[in-house]
Amino acid sequence: MYRTHSNGELRIENVGQEVTLAGWVQKTRDKGFMIWVDLRDRYGITQLIFDADRSSKEMVEEAKTLGREFVIQVKGEVIERVSKNKNIPTGAIEILVKELTVLNKSLVPPFTIEDETDGGDELRMKYRYLDIRRNPVKNNLIFRSKVAIETRKYLSDEGFIEVETPVLIKSTPEGARDFVVPSRMNEGQFYALPQSPQTFKQLLMVGGLDKYFQIVKCFRDEDLRADRQPEFTQIDCEMAFVEQEDILNTFEGLTRHLLKEINGVEVAKFPRMTYEEAMKKYGNDKPDIRFGMEFGELNEVAQHKDFGVFNNAELVVGIAVPGGNAYTRKEIDKLIEWIKRPQIGALGMVYVRCNEDGTYKSSVDKFYNQEDLAKWAEVTGAKPGDLICVLSGNADKVRGQLSALRMELATRLGLRKPNEFAPLWVIDFPLLEWDEETQRYHAMHHPFTSPKPEDMHLLDTDPGKVRANAYDMVLNGNEIGGGSIRIHDKKTQALMFDHLGFTPEQAKEQFGFLMNAFEYGAPPHGGLAFGLDRLVAILGGQETIRDFIAFPKNNSGRDIMIDAPSKIDDEQLKELCLKLDLKNK
Amino acid sequence: MYRTHSNGELRIENVGQEVTLAGWVQKTRDKGFMIWVDLRDRYGITQLIFDADRSSKEMVEEAKTLGREFVIQVKGEVIERVSKNKNIPTGAIEILVKELTVLNKSLVPPFTIEDETDGGDELRMKYRYLDIRRNPVKNNLIFRSKVAIETRKYLSDEGFIEVETPVLIKSTPEGARDFVVPSRMNEGQFYALPQSPQTFKQLLMVGGLDKYFQIVKCFRDEDLRADRQPEFTQIDCEMAFVEQEDILNTFEGLTRHLLKEINGVEVAKFPRMTYEEAMKKYGNDKPDIRFGMEFGELNEVAQHKDFGVFNNAELVVGIAVPGGNAYTRKEIDKLIEWIKRPQIGALGMVYVRCNEDGTYKSSVDKFYNQEDLAKWAEVTGAKPGDLICVLSGNADKVRGQLSALRMELATRLGLRKPNEFAPLWVIDFPLLEWDEETQRYHAMHHPFTSPKPEDMHLLDTDPGKVRANAYDMVLNGNEIGGGSIRIHDKKTQALMFDHLGFTPEQAKEQFGFLMNAFEYGAPPHGGLAFGLDRLVAILGGQETIRDFIAFPKNNSGRDIMIDAPSKIDDEQLKELCLKLDLKNK
Repeated sequence: MYRTHSNGELRIENVGQEVTLAGWVQKTRDKGFMIWVDLRDRYGITQLIFDADRSSKEMVEEAKTLGREFVIQVKGEVIERVSKNKNIPTGAIEILVKELTVLNKSLVPPFTIEDETDGGDELRMKYRYLDIRRNPVKNNLIFRSKVAIETRKYLSDEGFIEVETPVLIKSTPEGARDFVVPSRMNEGQFYALPQSPQTFKQLLMVGGLDKYFQIVKCFRDEDLRADRQPEFTQIDCEMAFVEQEDILNTFEGLTRHLLKEINGVEVAKFPRMTYEEAMKKYGNDKPDIRFGMEFGELNEVAQHKDFGVFNNAELVVGIAVPGGNAYTRKEIDKLIEWIKRPQIGALGMVYVRCNEDGTYKSSVDKFYNQEDLAKWAEVTGAKPGDLICVLSGNADKVRGQLSALRMELATRLGLRKPNEFAPLWVIDFPLLEWDEETQRYHAMHHPFTSPKPEDMHLLDTDPGKVRANAYDMVLNGNEIGGGSIRIHDKKTQALMFDHLGFTPEQAKEQFGFLMNAFEYGAPPHGGLAFGLDRLVAILGGQETIRDFIAFPKNNSGRDIMIDAPSKIDDEQLKELCLKLDLKNK
Repeated sequence: MYRTHSNGELRIENVGQEVTLAGWVQKTRDKGFMIWVDLRDRYGITQLIFDADRSSKEMVEEAKTLGREFVIQVKGEVIERVSKNKNIPTGAIEILVKELTVLNKSLVPPFTIEDETDGGDELRMKYRYLDIRRNPVKNNLIFRSKVAIETRKYLSDEGFIEVETPVLIKSTPEGARDFVVPSRMNEGQFYALPQSPQTFKQLLMVGGLDKYFQIVKCFRDEDLRADRQPEFTQIDCEMAFVEQEDILNTFEGLTRHLLKEINGVEVAKFPRMTYEEAMKKYGNDKPDIRFGMEFGELNEVAQHKDFGVFNNAELVVGIAVPGGNAYTRKEIDKLIEWIKRPQIGALGMVYVRCNEDGTYKSSVDKFYNQEDLAKWAEVTGAKPGDLICVLSGNADKVRGQLSALRMELATRLGLRKPNEFAPLWVIDFPLLEWDEETQRYHAMHHPFTSPKPEDMHLLDTDPGKVRANAYDMVLNGNEIGGGSIRIHDKKTQALMFDHLGFTPEQAKEQFGFLMNAFEYGAPPHGGLAFGLDRLVAILGGQETIRDFIAFPKNNSGRDIMIDAPSKIDDEQLKELCLKLDLKNK
């Protein structure tokens, strides 16, 4: 036995016991005839004392050779500490060491194994196994596993069955972002790695499984935006014989369960907001509703004056920044600069200072009088002391810009509190999305998403207006899950394919086996998938998913610890019937 | 709401209630003015009755159009059945239908959706989504999910943390059976899919996670023997600061937990058997100990007579077949034919009939008298009425042959009872294995497996005799898990690499990042991995893993339902900087 107790376990009650501990040397304090060592493992830290008087000089000498991160085993007696450390659970005791065994030495680690480390990102990724020894990373991994446990518990209790769907599947022509896997046994042929188990979960519904879930790795070979990973994990779910309401209730229940069990937070019934409302009020289909600053549309009160910029704009829209009147002119100028950056792309910003005395001072006083501005304040909900920021232009663009400004200001104002949770459903997403490039409509979710029956009549006349039975769960300004009710009848499906520009032959080619399966009694069904990485990060009060992944890849899709991807040898290529055809030779 | 109840739910207490049910039409019985329909879902079957008198003629007419596997929804009243069906939980009631909605039609399914179907293997694989509607397949999937739940429960309760390790990893030169994945973002470079998370779990131990597990997909691109899958699932585990004993106890506990929770079987402490003993007694490192028929080595009692075949043999070994004296001469001849097939490869078999009167009749009576044969009976434990089967030749070969015979006869005798469970540990595996082809020693498990300290002195003089701290868990003649204590100190590791024929440079190249990690305080650690597919099949009393996988691949690694693998288009190849170089153009 390497140990009788962990390093997080011993208390004052254990005083007098002979124990064996093992772990890593966190630090040593050398007082000549005595030496203290903090011994660390996953469970905590226990202080060891080597004392020339009470044990032996030789052992004190040996203890002096211990370096940081050495792995040692000690036998000794639990004694009461003279100066107790109230910051750690084992702080009342220490171990008077009687026997020391060095189990393994360590080179000096390339960064300190402390909560606040001196190691940069790149270095910590390269030595991820050392980074994992640090509490913040270790605790994140433990946190993630708890979220997975509670997810499985809730869904199992609700009658869901976890089914493993295949990882080696079929590449589809539209699967431009599929990773592919050459097959040795089937010359010249490839598997693809799933971007999601979408078709398989629908097949399981056709197969009568009724309630399916899976915590499953998915893969996407695309240019990685910040904080995306080529492999990511989903909580993937599907239910049969359900309407949208059943699904929303079930997964609202899951999220509430997680918030309660993981965060100890009880949340009320989730608000529901249509996509249209979310766009109008927040300029965003994943609004952060932990704070207000809702959009006020000002066309009615700001147009038809002499200000041409507003008069020519499709939309004039503003938000009230709480306490924003305190900003200096310079600060406001900086804000305007920020919003004019290419990433945001606003052309300018009009602002109104709401003075404490009830008067207004705006950047467009030439065109608007106090009465006009009072109306703006009314529409945006501005109070004395606030600042109203107003953007104008193309409606879609200006909403996106103002949304970015709203989030930025909220962050600066400390309104995005990591330990406050404001979930909501965004529902009634548009079924179709116009694609400028191909000049045709695309399915916003996927081609099996069911349109709302009451909107079906618009499919020919105004397809962009047709709403889908599609929904996203949003938490603190992040989409953490999304899904839809699927089409299960052939007539609607054919109509959809037609509107998406597929001939029946093309549809058959692309979705053949699923279409085929739907001929044999597909039940009404629908589902949703959560992004586990993101969900865990947000529940953990952070926004960087990489910190919640044991061995993440960097923004080029590389694992720099193991140096993957890498070249493979010619023999291996030959066996796979492949030749490299490099662009840069 | 599509349904108020499932089809497995209603009982006599529900009589009088108005309910809504939905599901698939299992079968209809048409009596003209009345029609009965068995409505099926995941939860069971409920009988519906359409009655011209009590509901309407029109509805009876409509019900007559219902085909097998149509998806319907009905509203009606729960009534007591006249003739109750005691075979199903809902057999006391039926639903007097008042409203019928056909939710979806179905083509006539290609095979019957019954427990005993008329569909062949190939057809059922192609229409796997229909096969899953059948109870045996559906129940297997539910069973599998239960095993996973109980596994996670046990390991979590024991303090194990589930950590997801990456799927896109690095290909290693010796990874001849790796699936590789070309990277679009890293031109000419490849990821590999893991054959196991071995290195990552060891890195997690270096990282101080202490107790890790994961239920995880692994991949192997190799010629598929019967009942192997290119993607398979492991319960992968690793522990730090442990000795072999700790690991055996922990995972014996897991297996006992599963047998109790899943099968309702309490098993005693698992027997332990050394590899050497298993080979001597059963000719096999995964002995089925549900029955006896242990090997009796007959060299001492059968050699040094006039029978040259035995005298020249390295090993003469036999088993007693219970009741085998009942076999006719013809049956015995057939057995000899069976064992001489190339797959087994025995050259012949000597047999001894143990007559009820205590006399013996053997195929070698010319060389052996009754007294000799009585000794054979004593060594093999044969009783009157048994048959002793004896093989001879090269020890390794003859053990394998006799093991095959033992298993075959046990199957024929019904001794391999699927609901009887006989687990054991096989321990003390050899560290090294001589490879005839390369004329050198290979690691039997992997190069990080720790040798037994007491055998270290043999490493130079008799390497084949060195035993490892390696162990397999065996259940009913199948290896369901295996693992080892790993080497954590550099000196032993260097010695191992040396004996495996690696130069330090080669070792560094192949195992670089793990070797590097071991420089920074690797704790003593060890672990094991269970094959989940096999474990589930055996707990389920079956031996075919394919029946416990939702969407399995066939023996050529193909998923014939989705037709994968398949060709990908030139555009996709070009993006990956690859060209096909087919052997058969």
